Parts: sequence; C-alpha cells; structure tokens
Amino acid sequence: MVKNEGRNPTASFKDRASVIGVVKAQEKKAAKIACASTGNAASSLAGFSAAAGLPSAIFVPANAPRAKVAQLLVFGAQVFFVQGTYDEAWELCMQACAEFGWYNRNCAINPYLIEGKKTVSLELAEQFSLLTPGAFPDWVVVSVGDGCTIGGVWKGLCEMRQLGLIPRLPRILSVQAEGCKPFFSAWKSDGALIPCAANTLADSIAVGHPRNFVKGMRAVTESSGTFVSVTDQEILHAIPELARLAGVFGEPAGVAGVAGIRRAVELNVIHRSESVALIMTGNGLKDIQSAMRAVSGAILVQPSMEEIRRHVEVTVTA
Amino acid sequence: MVKNEGRNPTASFKDRASVIGVVKAQEKKAAKIACASTGNAASSLAGFSAAAGLPSAIFVPANAPRAKVAQLLVFGAQVFFVQGTYDEAWELCMQACAEFGWYNRNCAINPYLIEGKKTVSLELAEQFSLLTPGAFPDWVVVSVGDGCTIGGVWKGLCEMRQLGLIPRLPRILSVQAEGCKPFFSAWKSDGALIPCAANTLADSIAVGHPRNFVKGMRAVTESSGTFVSVTDQEILHAIPELARLAGVFGEPAGVAGVAGIRRAVELNVIHRSESVALIMTGNGLKDIQSAMRAVSGAILVQPSMEEIRRHVEVTVTA
Repeated sequence: MVKNEGRNPTASFKDRASVIGVVKAQEKKAAKIACASTGNAASSLAGFSAAAGLPSAIFVPANAPRAKVAQLLVFGAQVFFVQGTYDEAWELCMQACAEFGWYNRNCAINPYLIEGKKTVSLELAEQFSLLTPGAFPDWVVVSVGDGCTIGGVWKGLCEMRQLGLIPRLPRILSVQAEGCKPFFSAWKSDGALIPCAANTLADSIAVGHPRNFVKGMRAVTESSGTFVSVTDQEILHAIPELARLAGVFGEPAGVAGVAGIRRAVELNVIHRSESVALIMTGNGLKDIQSAMRAVSGAILVQPSMEEIRRHVEVTVTA
Repeated sequence: MVKNEGRNPTASFKDRASVIGVVKAQEKKAAKIACASTGNAASSLAGFSAAAGLPSAIFVPANAPRAKVAQLLVFGAQVFFVQGTYDEAWELCMQACAEFGWYNRNCAINPYLIEGKKTVSLELAEQFSLLTPGAFPDWVVVSVGDGCTIGGVWKGLCEMRQLGLIPRLPRILSVQAEGCKPFFSAWKSDGALIPCAANTLADSIAVGHPRNFVKGMRAVTESSGTFVSVTDQEILHAIPELARLAGVFGEPAGVAGVAGIRRAVELNVIHRSESVALIMTGNGLKDIQSAMRAVSGAILVQPSMEEIRRHVEVTVTA
C-alpha cells in the first residue's frame, strides 16, 4: 500500500506540518513565519502562508532543486538562497527568528508541528479500517532526514493504538541514503549521533546533522523496527519501478522507501508474507532531473506511419 | 473559487478522461491504449495505464515540456516524440490505432471520455451545495484548446441542472491564448472554424485545429457565455498572481483562466458583483520554466547574519 503524499496541496508530506505552523503563527500574531529547508518544507510553508495571507521568509541551501525554488518564488516568499549546507541555512534561520521575532516553523524545535505530521497515521488507520476492518500493515516504511517525519508517524500510530483504532502497532522501517546516513550509523554502533556530510541526490533526506535524532531513533527502537540504507542508484531505479507498479511518480527521497523495502526483504528483515505501507513523501514533478536520469529516452520519429511501423515491429519482435 | 485540478493523480484535469479510457480499453480487451497529446493527456494516460497494467503508446509533439515527457517515460509508456505539430501527432495516432488495433483514447473521437470530463461539474455542484446550499457561481471559467474539456464541463452542468442539483446554469467564460485562438476568431466572425498556427507558451491549449469545435462552441453559446483571449505575458503574470492569492500553483494553460477573468472584468462582461468558479487545469510543477520566467530571483547570501540583516532592513524600508 502506498500512501501518496505527492498529492498534498504543495505536493509533499511537509504540508501536514506547514498548516499547523501557519495557524500557530496567526494565533501568536506573528508578522512573518520562517523556516530553513532542503526544499519541501520551504515550498510547503510558502504555499500555506500565501493561502493565509501571511508573509514568509525561507532559508534554502543553494543546491536545492529548481522546481522547489520555483514554488517558493511563485508563492511570493522572501527567499534566502544560502551558499552553504542545510545545516548552515538552519542556523541562520534560527538566528533570524530570534532577532526579528519571526515565527519559527523549523520542525525540530517547534513542538506543534508534530501534531500535523502525525495525521498521516490517523489517515492510515482510517483508510485501513475502511479497506479491511481489523487489519493493519505489519510495517510502515518512511525515508528519514531530520527525524521529524518518522517521529510524527510514530506518535500518530501510538495514539491510534491507545484509542484502540488499530489492532496493533506496526514496525517502522526507516530508510536512509548511503551518502548520508547518520541514523543508520548510530543504530549500527553505540546509538550516539555523529553528524556527517550529505552526499545524495535524495535532497529531501540529505541531512547530515539531524535535529530530531532522539524522536527518530525512538520510533524505530520502540517499534522493534530497523534501519536500512540504499544507494543513489537504487533510489533512481525505484522511481520508474514505483511509477510502473502503482502509477505513483515520486521524488528520490519519496521512493527511497521502495528501495529500502527491497533491501529489507533481501536481508530477511521483511518477510514476503508481511504487509507494508509506504509513505511516499514527495511528488516526482519536484525533481524531473533525477527522474530523467532513471529512464531511457523517447523514440524520435518524423510524422510518418512508416517510421512508426518500424518501431512497433521492433518492439513486437524484441 | 478555484477548482484545483493540479492535485489529480498525475496532476492535471486529463485524469478524469484517462480513467474512463483505460476502463473502456480493458472492457474491450485491447492489447494497448494510445493517444496523441500536447502533454497532459499523455502523462495522464501513461499513469493510469501503468496503474492498470495496460501497455500504452503515446504520440507527443517534440516541443512538449520536459516534465510531462519525464512522466511518460517514468510510467513506462512507449513514447513517440513526433517531429511536427500536435496536429501531425494526432493524425499519426489515429492511423496507428486503426492499423494495430490499439484502443484510441483521443478525446475528440472517443465518445466515452466526456463522461469522465463532466465529473468536474458534478463535483462543483456537490461542493457548492455543501458550502452554501442553493448557491452556484454565475460563471464557470475554462481555458480551451481542443474543445473537449469545455464540452465535458458543459455536459456535466446541464445534467446537474436537469436533475435539480444546481439552482441554475452558469455562463461559460472560455479563454484562449492570443497566439492560438481559433475558437475566439470563429466566435468573433461567422462562427466557422479556420485552423491556425499555434504560437503560445500555454502548451496545453496550443491547438490550432480543435477536434471538438462544435461541442466547444455550443458550451459557450448555449450558456450565453463568451470567449476572451489573453497574451502570453498576461498568462505568465497570472502564475504568481493565483499562487499568492489562493496558494494554488498552476501551469500556463491552467492559469490562463485567471488572466481571462481579468480581461472579462475589464470588458464589463463579468461584473464585480458576480461569482466565478475557475477550473485550474494543470499543476505548475509541470512547467517550471514558464514559472521561473514569471518571477524574480531569490536573494543569494553567504551564511552570515550580517547579510540577512541588510536584506531585511532593505525590505522594511523599501
């Protein structure tokens, strides 16, 4: 089962947090709301601020994908393109909020946003109870950057269990990119966080210094779940794989979970008889460049049936 | 009121037709389904075919936007990139369907697809009756290429009226691009279609030879509606305008309706007291290039508060 978050208003999971951020900023009568983001939280905040008529300031690392930057500008946010890492953009945003009194939407330090993020689990509970009453997947799969998303997913699941709305707690499979896996590394060693460089095309989970490390780790350990890491090549491969199987086009961080499921099955961590819900966190239209790297080209033809016939024959006999 | 079709499964209005096409192809046990498209119908068909496990062949003019082509390839369609116009791609698809027995999803000749397209009006009726029982907008605004969409919208509205589910029929405002306006020209003269060249960045409505001319004209005349045309510059301007007012990011053809409303108000065709429902037909993430042309850039900064202060001060005093 794929929970497709790419159809949210600004096309990513982050909308669940932004809506709460904007409402809280309005409650507190803030003049502006700000966040630092690798892209999705930023475009999401820009969209929800625009809809609410609240000015926003966004700190993005200069290597953020074009589509996400286009969203920011179109929605009218004040965009600071920080020539540095996500971590530097984050620090800058923290300082600016403190200095100018802007409302801080950074998920790792804002205690309200998790209440938005957890709603994905509320929906999972509702949707499964409608599909097959009493059933719930054995595993919930999420790709992990800062740790806030997986923390929110877990909080929602625990509340649904406490209320008796799901029959039992699933295990959490947390997927990181090989080129940036501080959670995975900590889990494999003594559990302590060692910040690292971020070197992966899955920009939405390229977080070398996760700000919600404790909540992220807790989601996996409490659920008797596990961490896996996947290469960029496996992530790219998962883009057409998910699209062709399920009709869902995801961005790299969104489909990383697909590659993670494959890895977990290979490792005998997930068994073929078990059921899995994948939280697909972002729309593939946000990163066309990566998608194009994952597929082969179209067939260039002149407008003549002769050419078409040749290609159709080739296809039939191939 | 904005009816945001950019959140459909493949991010455009065309999904409403594709789902019917795929179901009909399966009923008829076709081995393959095909269509010609400027982009959205194609990516939509590719997505729904993938979800249903049905092979698809798509004929796209070679100037289709990259994001739409990426969708096609990711979903695994056989893509023929026709070095010619949309009209040539259309003819080629017609011939290929006849020759190879593929199921033809081309909306203008497939009688079933309008049953999918009309559902947008069914939803409008439902949503308005929930919002304000007994109310319905004075105008429904749609951008027009082939004429199929506006025909479907009108069929749905007429059925809703016949069933008594809306209090009266709205008028249809049909919006064309200045660089490709065969409907507008026919309506301004004797009503006869004169096919023309297509020269607009709003690729989804760049149709010089509309295949559903009769249905399209009928929707406007029967509803006592009107046609307007808008320039590419006005369309570009409408991208951030809609995004900032409503939090909805649309592609050029999708926001052309916004520019059209502005024009119609200037012409005193739509009065300021009247209510309007805009059918926003496609997600802005499908055409980042146009969006970037419509907005000014981000503020490039080093990761230092000194730089931020300077820009925030500039903003405050500006």
